[in-house]
Amino acid sequence: MIDYRRTHTCGELKKNDCEKYVTLSGWVHKHRDHGGIIFVNIRDRYGKTQLVFNSDKNPECYAIAENLHIEWVISVKGEVIPRTDGMTNPSMPTGDIEVLVKEINILSKARPLPISVSDDFVEVNEETRLKYRYLDMRRGDISDKLIMRHKAMHAMRMFMDSKDFIEITTPILAKSTPEGARDYLIPSRIYPGNFYALPQSPQIFKQLLMISGIDKYFQFAPCFRDEDLRASRQPEFTQLDMEMSFETTEKLFEIIEDLFASTFKKCLGVDITTPFRQIPYRECMKRYGTDKPDLRYGMELVCLDDIAKRSTFSVFLDQLEAGNVIKGLCVKKGADISRKMIDNYTSFVGKLGIRGLAWMKMKDNSLSSSIVKFFSPEIQEELVTKMGIEDGDLVFIIADKESATNQALDHLRRRLAKDRDLIGNNKYEFLWVTEFPLLAWNDDEERLEAEHHPFTAPHNDDIHLLDSDPLKVRSQSYDLVLNGYELASGSQRIHSVEIQEKIFETLKLTHDEIHERFGFFIEALQYGTPPHLGIGIGFDRVIMIMTQTENIRDVIAFPKTNKAMDLMSESPSAIDREQLKELRITVEE
Amino acid sequence: MIDYRRTHTCGELKKNDCEKYVTLSGWVHKHRDHGGIIFVNIRDRYGKTQLVFNSDKNPECYAIAENLHIEWVISVKGEVIPRTDGMTNPSMPTGDIEVLVKEINILSKARPLPISVSDDFVEVNEETRLKYRYLDMRRGDISDKLIMRHKAMHAMRMFMDSKDFIEITTPILAKSTPEGARDYLIPSRIYPGNFYALPQSPQIFKQLLMISGIDKYFQFAPCFRDEDLRASRQPEFTQLDMEMSFETTEKLFEIIEDLFASTFKKCLGVDITTPFRQIPYRECMKRYGTDKPDLRYGMELVCLDDIAKRSTFSVFLDQLEAGNVIKGLCVKKGADISRKMIDNYTSFVGKLGIRGLAWMKMKDNSLSSSIVKFFSPEIQEELVTKMGIEDGDLVFIIADKESATNQALDHLRRRLAKDRDLIGNNKYEFLWVTEFPLLAWNDDEERLEAEHHPFTAPHNDDIHLLDSDPLKVRSQSYDLVLNGYELASGSQRIHSVEIQEKIFETLKLTHDEIHERFGFFIEALQYGTPPHLGIGIGFDRVIMIMTQTENIRDVIAFPKTNKAMDLMSESPSAIDREQLKELRITVEE
Repeated sequence: MIDYRRTHTCGELKKNDCEKYVTLSGWVHKHRDHGGIIFVNIRDRYGKTQLVFNSDKNPECYAIAENLHIEWVISVKGEVIPRTDGMTNPSMPTGDIEVLVKEINILSKARPLPISVSDDFVEVNEETRLKYRYLDMRRGDISDKLIMRHKAMHAMRMFMDSKDFIEITTPILAKSTPEGARDYLIPSRIYPGNFYALPQSPQIFKQLLMISGIDKYFQFAPCFRDEDLRASRQPEFTQLDMEMSFETTEKLFEIIEDLFASTFKKCLGVDITTPFRQIPYRECMKRYGTDKPDLRYGMELVCLDDIAKRSTFSVFLDQLEAGNVIKGLCVKKGADISRKMIDNYTSFVGKLGIRGLAWMKMKDNSLSSSIVKFFSPEIQEELVTKMGIEDGDLVFIIADKESATNQALDHLRRRLAKDRDLIGNNKYEFLWVTEFPLLAWNDDEERLEAEHHPFTAPHNDDIHLLDSDPLKVRSQSYDLVLNGYELASGSQRIHSVEIQEKIFETLKLTHDEIHERFGFFIEALQYGTPPHLGIGIGFDRVIMIMTQTENIRDVIAFPKTNKAMDLMSESPSAIDREQLKELRITVEE
Repeated sequence: MIDYRRTHTCGELKKNDCEKYVTLSGWVHKHRDHGGIIFVNIRDRYGKTQLVFNSDKNPECYAIAENLHIEWVISVKGEVIPRTDGMTNPSMPTGDIEVLVKEINILSKARPLPISVSDDFVEVNEETRLKYRYLDMRRGDISDKLIMRHKAMHAMRMFMDSKDFIEITTPILAKSTPEGARDYLIPSRIYPGNFYALPQSPQIFKQLLMISGIDKYFQFAPCFRDEDLRASRQPEFTQLDMEMSFETTEKLFEIIEDLFASTFKKCLGVDITTPFRQIPYRECMKRYGTDKPDLRYGMELVCLDDIAKRSTFSVFLDQLEAGNVIKGLCVKKGADISRKMIDNYTSFVGKLGIRGLAWMKMKDNSLSSSIVKFFSPEIQEELVTKMGIEDGDLVFIIADKESATNQALDHLRRRLAKDRDLIGNNKYEFLWVTEFPLLAWNDDEERLEAEHHPFTAPHNDDIHLLDSDPLKVRSQSYDLVLNGYELASGSQRIHSVEIQEKIFETLKLTHDEIHERFGFFIEALQYGTPPHLGIGIGFDRVIMIMTQTENIRDVIAFPKTNKAMDLMSESPSAIDREQLKELRITVEE
């Protein structure tokens, strides 16, 4: 029986370990035969160590080493010795030493690999990487991210536990709900024709826990959505879900801020400033054109309606006439942006449906561009003050429908920040966006619908508007935004039967519809519901930001493609007819 | 806006809090109107506090209190005052004080409840309890168990993290495998006719992680089996799953023993003796008739073949002739067991297919019973010595097929321990059962099959038997048993391609079958697999033992019935035809 128990990992031996007799086990990472002397780099997830096989000193080991191949698994025993002068490798943590091998055992052999895992990094297409995920992970990049994921998850659990939150697991074989995205369904064998559904979130379960008297709940919850996927989506994803009773939004913000601060400190060594900024939704849209602004840089949007209407520029005047808006942003020191670049930005916003991108440069303390002439000197001065234009700056102005203008300027702002390198590394700008609208108008169905879900509490000051101007009603909801990404979303829930009924009335739901769609949950709300509120944090996104990747697949051990396929196990796959027969379902040809 | 933020929970106010002005929020638990004075017990998950409403001192609050009903949610502010002499309640942690209410707000009202949650415990049938799970949880018993579940899960995570294990989440939308129990299937919308499956365990994924170089993995993994359920099963359950590379069984035992010791200490204050006992499977079957013996009491089984064959008792002689066995157990001080009780035990083993239960009592240093005459004094003496029979003891003896005899004596032993109160409270007897057989004979299919799964490593000493006597081959597998329950199961896995091929050969699997059944995993094993081993711990069972319940539903927040039904949400349920159409499946009528 081979004793392959490691005395050390392949990443830890240092100069002061010299003369120790050690056992290392791992993969053959590199193999160099110098004739009479063979160097092998042995690798595990902690690092690499150079092994030396000397034909004079230990011919038996040398003979075995001669036949080693890349990625074979070996275990060696030997003496740690210093590398001779000039042979040390400062780029390798173990680069000061090597291990003179006295005993070697081959634990398992390897066929030639379809993916290189050597230091000579070879770009491999993502499909192959996903098919051989277990080999791709040997390259270190993915497994480092998974280790960060573990650390962050652990730090967050420690934090939530320290605040007396109870982690409670809710069902995965859950009930199909007609709201929201498409459910994944699971046919029941015992009740043919009936189905379970994978949960899109634990929303109803966590509210039931509050009704049950559990006052502080959390969970790292697997959530599922059968959607047509975008690059940053996965059919299954993880939410750090929490809910609490008898508390306020201020307290929830404090808890979540401390959660992120302690996690980022522990895992990244980064100090985060708390409390986070807060901006109500309407103000946010005005200043950034989006409800998830990236606050790592400036370039706030400025409304120019008032100035434009006093210009003689017919394009602007026509837009204002049509009820549209004129908004702009100021690029500090942007006067160096060339005409060609401006043309690029014009076609960039053009793709978003915007027909023109006006601009002005400030040089030698005067504005220049083809449209400056339409603005009187007084109005120019007003513009300069309002937008804070300084010498060397450039402003972009868009005139279009409000939503299109906001969208275009948001995209333009993000694009400019990248192009002009305004973002900087390791900056984490958190933001609470609050007071989202409670209701939205569904054009297709020509009716009001809940913006979030129908259990979100309306803002106390706006309840009187529910009948007269429902689209103006703000909700007690909030999103957490980090560096331009929506990280989390939550709200105060309705706990009063009266208000819940008022909302259903506003949504024009009949008694039958209410029962069919929310059934048992509406009953539960009537047995004494405490005031409660909560939030769901997109944990995969948090880890993406912490590990600086734009690819959600990088932070999931065994992810699926955009088309919800697991290329490694080739799932989904065909099923034995017998199994379907037991479920009493047939697949259409 | 009502300020319902609690200064204290309903379980913490003590005498030294008197004169404090406090805010409590919770449910109206009890309501007693004494005319001019009203007592209300307010409850949250931490406890109860008595509130006093005095019509003289605060008529406004009193007027509100008059109309309160059970389970309404209220928030009160008031002064903590000592209860008058004779009115204290020592059985209530807050029984020394009460709160004189100065301000009360009703947060939400409640319809009459279908389940009583008062102190006057009313037994409710389990169906109603499950339908109104969120109300049943207000009664405290279930939520206490869920809190213990959280504590144990957290303690285990802390331990695994401290040992450098990485928690990695594996997919829930996984691949259907033809091995093991029935899979839950999920039709794919994007690939009509193809299905995902919910994982029965993360076995393949965790082995792939070892191949990827992650050397220490764990996970609290949701697992799923579409089986016809027994009382102690749920369609979804939780496994504490772990795997590691380059280590030995001894090390794994040490880690798991320390895991349990630290968890039981933290959560129960109980000291567990480590290391745990170890018994090889064959010896275990011999001594206890089962592979999951309860070691909290004695009554080991004794093989009496050798003695019986020298008796003149034809029943025993006939059984021996037929190749069957004679085994017995000794009940200490069991001579008080009446003939009626013996008859009961006889019919008890009768239900397990055993036709007779022989017995002997030792009184005044001589054996007595109807069969004693068939044993010569010398043989009687030998029997007494072999079974350790002392004055006042009773022995039971069964003669039948080995497996039936073992099963019956195991059940009899457990039954006797209960009847005779031999178990005691808070005793935790852990046991490793090792060296399970590698292979089993499948009578139906007339072929060898893997006892555990085909990746379990054979015992090094037995590999030579794979051709000649495969059923004799022991595996490097182990179960962890606690108080008679199987808690965990694991093994050293095969990491050598040669041995894996040898096993497939022994199982008479063709190349095509191997590919179809194990496909990509077999390929993965060939790219350099480290020696690895692991275990899966039935976490629900652990919590059942820690919270002393026999009902698995008591330790799961929202469980399903034996028939896999969620009575609360009425799931599984019928689905919109449109949804099925999108999936291109039809349900047979």
